[in-house]
Amino acid sequence: MTQPLLLRNIRPMGGEATDLLIRGGVIAEAGRGLDAPDAVVEEGGGALALPGLVEAHTHLDKTLWGMGWRPHQAGPALMDKIETERRLKKEWNIDPARQSARQVVQSLRHGTTHIRSHVDVDDAVGLAGMEGVLATRQAYAGSMDIQTIAFPQSGLLIRPGVAALLEDAMRMGADGVGGLDPCLIDRDPKGHLDVVFGLAEKFGKPVDIHLHEPGQVGAFSMELIAERTRVLGMQGKVTISHAFCLGDPDLAMVDGLLDLLAANNIAVMTTGPASRPAPPVAKLRARGITVCAGSDGIRDTWNPYGNGDMLQRAMLIGLRNNFRRDDEVEMALDACTWGGAAVMGARGYGLAPGCIADIVLVSAESLAEAVVSQPPRALVVKRGKVVVRDGEVSVRAP
Amino acid sequence: MTQPLLLRNIRPMGGEATDLLIRGGVIAEAGRGLDAPDAVVEEGGGALALPGLVEAHTHLDKTLWGMGWRPHQAGPALMDKIETERRLKKEWNIDPARQSARQVVQSLRHGTTHIRSHVDVDDAVGLAGMEGVLATRQAYAGSMDIQTIAFPQSGLLIRPGVAALLEDAMRMGADGVGGLDPCLIDRDPKGHLDVVFGLAEKFGKPVDIHLHEPGQVGAFSMELIAERTRVLGMQGKVTISHAFCLGDPDLAMVDGLLDLLAANNIAVMTTGPASRPAPPVAKLRARGITVCAGSDGIRDTWNPYGNGDMLQRAMLIGLRNNFRRDDEVEMALDACTWGGAAVMGARGYGLAPGCIADIVLVSAESLAEAVVSQPPRALVVKRGKVVVRDGEVSVRAP
Repeated sequence: MTQPLLLRNIRPMGGEATDLLIRGGVIAEAGRGLDAPDAVVEEGGGALALPGLVEAHTHLDKTLWGMGWRPHQAGPALMDKIETERRLKKEWNIDPARQSARQVVQSLRHGTTHIRSHVDVDDAVGLAGMEGVLATRQAYAGSMDIQTIAFPQSGLLIRPGVAALLEDAMRMGADGVGGLDPCLIDRDPKGHLDVVFGLAEKFGKPVDIHLHEPGQVGAFSMELIAERTRVLGMQGKVTISHAFCLGDPDLAMVDGLLDLLAANNIAVMTTGPASRPAPPVAKLRARGITVCAGSDGIRDTWNPYGNGDMLQRAMLIGLRNNFRRDDEVEMALDACTWGGAAVMGARGYGLAPGCIADIVLVSAESLAEAVVSQPPRALVVKRGKVVVRDGEVSVRAP
Repeated sequence: MTQPLLLRNIRPMGGEATDLLIRGGVIAEAGRGLDAPDAVVEEGGGALALPGLVEAHTHLDKTLWGMGWRPHQAGPALMDKIETERRLKKEWNIDPARQSARQVVQSLRHGTTHIRSHVDVDDAVGLAGMEGVLATRQAYAGSMDIQTIAFPQSGLLIRPGVAALLEDAMRMGADGVGGLDPCLIDRDPKGHLDVVFGLAEKFGKPVDIHLHEPGQVGAFSMELIAERTRVLGMQGKVTISHAFCLGDPDLAMVDGLLDLLAANNIAVMTTGPASRPAPPVAKLRARGITVCAGSDGIRDTWNPYGNGDMLQRAMLIGLRNNFRRDDEVEMALDACTWGGAAVMGARGYGLAPGCIADIVLVSAESLAEAVVSQPPRALVVKRGKVVVRDGEVSVRAP
């Protein structure tokens, strides 16, 4: 059992200064002037306290983090990137266990305590990605909560054997079923979604679908997803990632889609993409739609950007959505905290007594300042244990 | 005279390792294994060397940097922001001299050695902004090259007396004449541009116009600007900042505008705005149009974002333009270096012998890596003098 921990003089969510006493990895008590002779004391110095940040969409199995600079090689189309990646995974030996561990440590450095990772399952790598990420999940179980989504990155029906591999991945313990552009990649939306939702039903797991499809074709796929969500009673168990079609200028179409998402409690994941149409976060939130956030690929064969900092991600979402007021910027942060926790079904998430003690301290006056300035993480606590101090991580990556 | 400086084992623009010998503030010699007994030696350790970064569009006179967190108050329209700022400048005592000095030091920390600042000239503050920024320019003359653009932020014709104030600002030594949305703010494009170009002609100074106007109305203003540029022989002396209309989906219209800009050697400034249509940087560059970059306002009453780091700005421009290959990311960096230097008419800019020794060292394998990872500035040299070491600035702000 970890030793009790007393965090003194911290400001949960930028509010009044208080102390938090943590016992058995859980926030036991909150209040000013707490005392606990058996606890290790950490002086917060008035730091702003956030719950652990949530990376709700990334690809741990294929980051190039720590492999030196590799100039981007892929062409502009989605399929160029898929084919280039299939080739480079072999040529560069992008080892899923090693690479996922590196990203986990990098994310932890920035105060991320929960990661949902899509993991490639295809006819080239088979289940090697799943094996690697599951090994990392076990190795870093004390520092990071990791969920895996079995993800048919290369296509599901256009690649013979992938549907069966996806089922194998679910048997290995994947936490959810992934999907990808049912129209534009698999060219058979009904067939694609039947497999994805069929597996979700069979294994009783949630669905998280990459939907890059723009405009009306994305809307069509989204309607099909909503229909299956409703019929299968999977409300609250489905996430649509990227959802570029929600950024379409045809606002009547978008409004109809938002109604469908709200009615079926379907969540949306956004990266705040600067060069693509993007889901309008404030509008989604006003309809009660859960919004979570992710880095997507970090420094991989798809794109050279990303550092795993979910405060920077909140800034990018804020910039993309033209959020300027504090309450708006806080909405972007909410996607990187509570929104992600909701999508991951993280139990005991938060800063109240009874919550699991996943806590990040930063030097900032307000939540909005934390987002725009992304201060170094002074302290990161995972289940009551200090795992980062002044940006230094207590666990190592290979 | 500054002591000679020998930078050992650095990689200019990420190329082969070499040494640079600096005498009298100028790069005197480049080559491996240089020796100079009279020089101070700095070991670069293979660091990547960039020329000083160029902030080609900001508002030094009104940043809130160092004034504590101030929640954003303005409404969504441009005029809301103008009116709110006029009020808060007084209420919050946003002192132009103090605030511009703070931003200069913050920019220097990130390796910026050149700043073009628009400075508000209006019927509320008069010339106080100019006085403050000119005082800062003098106080930091050894560390930063600062240009001022006299900028009618509140409107030029709609505010009686501002045209005369603008002329006074030019007499005080402003380096250029600014303008603002000739149609949508001043409601009299001919009248607005006649004043702006009239002053430019009278004082022999360049023009730099804020053009937020979207679509066809922006195109109309841009045509009027190009016409005056041609007739007055001001090719190479005019910059259009923001130029959102160049991000319009009407590509035929945009192509026509690019022809006009190229024919009249008009430069474009972009911030890489994530929530607005943006000039397509690669297309502009392919036409030979000079592109420079700026932070715009940093932490001011207009928006809460910004940190003055032009490497982060290059990343934002890269993200906005969907730049993934190294040569594309380098284009974004070019806007933050050579592009800005061209617009500012910075003489002796670069890393070759004979250039003024404004040099930034960072730990990165490649230019693209410097952009995506924005490493701390290991060393910043201004005219041969070390002004930043490991992120610590040698000059202080008030």
